[in-house]
Amino acid sequence: MPKENRGAKESADGSAPLRELLRVPVGERIDLAAYDAAATPGAPGKKAAGAAATARLAPDLAALQERLYAASTAGDRRRLLLVLQGMDTSGKGGTVKHVIGHFNPSGCRIRAFKAPTPQEKAHPFLWRVTQALPRPGEIGIFDRSHYEDVLIARVRSLVPGPELEDRYAEIAAFEKALTEDGVTLVKVFLHLSYEEQRDRLLERLDDPEKHWKFNAGDIEERALWPAYQEAYEIALERCSTEAAPWYLVPADRKWYRNWAISTLLGEHLAELDPRYPKGDFDVAECRRRLLSQ
Amino acid sequence: MPKENRGAKESADGSAPLRELLRVPVGERIDLAAYDAAATPGAPGKKAAGAAATARLAPDLAALQERLYAASTAGDRRRLLLVLQGMDTSGKGGTVKHVIGHFNPSGCRIRAFKAPTPQEKAHPFLWRVTQALPRPGEIGIFDRSHYEDVLIARVRSLVPGPELEDRYAEIAAFEKALTEDGVTLVKVFLHLSYEEQRDRLLERLDDPEKHWKFNAGDIEERALWPAYQEAYEIALERCSTEAAPWYLVPADRKWYRNWAISTLLGEHLAELDPRYPKGDFDVAECRRRLLSQ
Repeated sequence: MPKENRGAKESADGSAPLRELLRVPVGERIDLAAYDAAATPGAPGKKAAGAAATARLAPDLAALQERLYAASTAGDRRRLLLVLQGMDTSGKGGTVKHVIGHFNPSGCRIRAFKAPTPQEKAHPFLWRVTQALPRPGEIGIFDRSHYEDVLIARVRSLVPGPELEDRYAEIAAFEKALTEDGVTLVKVFLHLSYEEQRDRLLERLDDPEKHWKFNAGDIEERALWPAYQEAYEIALERCSTEAAPWYLVPADRKWYRNWAISTLLGEHLAELDPRYPKGDFDVAECRRRLLSQ
Repeated sequence: MPKENRGAKESADGSAPLRELLRVPVGERIDLAAYDAAATPGAPGKKAAGAAATARLAPDLAALQERLYAASTAGDRRRLLLVLQGMDTSGKGGTVKHVIGHFNPSGCRIRAFKAPTPQEKAHPFLWRVTQALPRPGEIGIFDRSHYEDVLIARVRSLVPGPELEDRYAEIAAFEKALTEDGVTLVKVFLHLSYEEQRDRLLERLDDPEKHWKFNAGDIEERALWPAYQEAYEIALERCSTEAAPWYLVPADRKWYRNWAISTLLGEHLAELDPRYPKGDFDVAECRRRLLSQ
């Protein structure tokens, strides 16, 4: 794979929000091979500094989540949906463990999408996704998503060509409707290198405690790497929209991935700026009643 | 409320597992007023030592959860269900935040039960609970549960007497069936004192950032305290079974609650002793194929 160490549009002064650095441009075809999967755009230093920065973000993320949830109890319908996509071993599960672990689990709605069940197959492809959306005040997490229906579906020709082509516009329209209903979408493509995937698969093979994460089919999927990269390029081009842009997160370095996704979530939650609602009761009167009990 | 500082059957040498100390005896009516809600049976010291011990438990809990999940990928159907019950402010939500926060969120299935919806009301009372059960390998958490159907339902006479009386046996039979299907039930009653509830409600009133957790109905429920205590005593008596005992956790001290529930979960998971499954593939062959790609 050719590679230029230019990172994803690294800013000169480092002052831009990370979302600006990592956002996939709307309507442009990007060449994934030109993005270094080991780059660390915007990072506050190397591994130790990055991990420390991630840990420092945790309390703010938890506080913002609490405010988002609190606001929903007074009718605020806003919520956030993190969509994680990437090749096997790119760190979708690791992100849930290390980043989503910062949040109060009661306000998270997590769904890992596998091969569709017969019931799911009997419905239009977006159906199963609509069943798993976050409710107002929640943070939803999709480990894989409706994008599988234009990724593996394209690579393995699971649907007729015209049907596949229609799906991109359907996805864009669906996501636009979600944003209009109060959903902030944070779509993250975990950009892993071919070499790093090999190392991570070998690691799983070499550790009996990781064998459960491995299956022989992973090697067959890996043989289709170029077709998957192309399918991602097409999906990023057609579905990175103003309403719901994609973010390209270099994923060869796990510490960077954790820092970058924590930061992206923090930036989006801070922009929502959810507020604790005012109580609809008379505090003095409630105090009096309580103390007289 | 009368109170004796005897804790819940504190063991003399402190060597018994916590589950032995806190288990509600099968078939006996207990007098909640005799249990000190500020007691700390089995605790490794006071607040600082208890909090430190809880933090030390976290990696083991996470490791056991991973093994439980890994085992499910090879067909092990076992899973754990933590049922949390207790009066308002007794710490059900705090337990989810502070104890369940130790686990990988992707393996947790959390459900908070509120007043039943019209759809839920159209079904038998156990229906909504069956929709929220943990899948094999998961840790389920019920914040309130089917026990509300013999607690508020009794206190507020929401169902005819004979129907209510039948529910206890239905619950016991339902839970027995769950255990036979591989579910380890950990039913925790958070035992709070009347005085501590007042203080916690006042705290919510006095902090505008906590107003969203308060509603005036909380004061009306509190007025029914003795009826609720009696309803809990009856539920503990009739539904603490060999298959699925209740645990009484004194809940006035938050650090103790967190330590005790972490410890109870750890004891149950350790007893399950889930194992990483063996891979069903030829490691050498997979290595060779990977390295030749």
